[in-house]
Amino acid sequence: MLYLVGIGMEEKDLSLKAIEAMVNSQKVYIESYTSKWLGFKEDLEKLTRKKIETLDRKDMEEGVRKILKEAKERSVAILVPGDPLTATTHIEVILSAKKDDLPVKIIHAPSIFSVVAETGLQIYKFGETVSLPRPRENYKPVSWMDKIYKNLEHGLHTLVLLDVEPQPMTIKEAIKIIKESDEKKLLNDKKIIACSCLGTEKRLIRCDVIENLIKCSGDFDTPACIVIPGNLHFKEEEALKMWSE
Amino acid sequence: MLYLVGIGMEEKDLSLKAIEAMVNSQKVYIESYTSKWLGFKEDLEKLTRKKIETLDRKDMEEGVRKILKEAKERSVAILVPGDPLTATTHIEVILSAKKDDLPVKIIHAPSIFSVVAETGLQIYKFGETVSLPRPRENYKPVSWMDKIYKNLEHGLHTLVLLDVEPQPMTIKEAIKIIKESDEKKLLNDKKIIACSCLGTEKRLIRCDVIENLIKCSGDFDTPACIVIPGNLHFKEEEALKMWSE
Repeated sequence: MLYLVGIGMEEKDLSLKAIEAMVNSQKVYIESYTSKWLGFKEDLEKLTRKKIETLDRKDMEEGVRKILKEAKERSVAILVPGDPLTATTHIEVILSAKKDDLPVKIIHAPSIFSVVAETGLQIYKFGETVSLPRPRENYKPVSWMDKIYKNLEHGLHTLVLLDVEPQPMTIKEAIKIIKESDEKKLLNDKKIIACSCLGTEKRLIRCDVIENLIKCSGDFDTPACIVIPGNLHFKEEEALKMWSE
Repeated sequence: MLYLVGIGMEEKDLSLKAIEAMVNSQKVYIESYTSKWLGFKEDLEKLTRKKIETLDRKDMEEGVRKILKEAKERSVAILVPGDPLTATTHIEVILSAKKDDLPVKIIHAPSIFSVVAETGLQIYKFGETVSLPRPRENYKPVSWMDKIYKNLEHGLHTLVLLDVEPQPMTIKEAIKIIKESDEKKLLNDKKIIACSCLGTEKRLIRCDVIENLIKCSGDFDTPACIVIPGNLHFKEEEALKMWSE
């Protein structure tokens, strides 16, 4: 049996299902490269009395056969920050397991896709999600900005997820890239939302124009994300005021 | 202190944070009209040794002042199926609490917005979410179908949430309404996805054309939802095959 176990934002997001899966597993892995996690592996180990081995991207992508083979013989749990199915890697694991006739149990947990509702924006009115890549020497994609423009055109909000490699992108970096990539200058005077550590006590949310966000961008920790609001319902407007004071 | 506590799809989705909040509260309520929950209140009561009082829509919308006043004097937890912030009602509770200077703690949990990833569709590629209302005597809205068309036009998936009042809409009802409302006949030969009890052992997912889904629609329990896929990545296509056999 293979358990794909979401562990949310920090240790105490662990559900009873997740604890049960860990306790029932002979081997427990954690992968923490698809998103930054604010918990401590050691606390999970104490809580469940299981040794937890860390997987890197190579273990997960190239070495997944090895783990699936292991799970054929004994129960294996892979812990994943957030929800296990919001990263495509893990859906591929399920497909590979299916080919091997290996039963998989999925255990859900809070993910950025639900936790972003802390901004007060209605989750129904989000359009396509955007991944903001860190520009590299020969790689400066801009298609993500077109998606933001398209969402704005339809009055929809955009969740902008920030690159996690080689380390989680900061609000400072993200704001700079967004400002430079906004060729239509649609975001110049628009209030956008910067968030870090959502779903935890360390949460910080601020809604302001880019110029002002740049000034306080050092206050934000990682993991961070940006939300570009579309048309606002008056209740959403009221909610956003919480972050503008 | 007011705790807004997500309880996910069933009892064992309860997180350590949620249990802590319940144990620390002098009064625990559950509201279960915004979505159908597959758990048992009695099991939660046993687990946390707290009596849990059920709130109906009137208690929550008109009577919220009373609860906020109570939470000023002693810790109160309101349990909410799924994630507490995916329903607008609960964001309004936060805004009212803020006006009263009442601290609110939000505890997240799996919601349909993350659990729908069990279909294998990429959560990034969902467009605006659609709520499918049950047609009533003088109320036959069709704007939700325009949103589906718009998402399709942009290649995006649509999560279709089904009416919960006066009782949760079934797949049978939903498919019938969708078929009748599809004036452009774009969904006639298209494979769409019917789901019930996602995130639980009772889960059922089927991907097929409307005519075939009608035939097996009696197999689905509630809560149910429909997903209209947009353009498919080959990995998504592979995933959907799991539900077409």
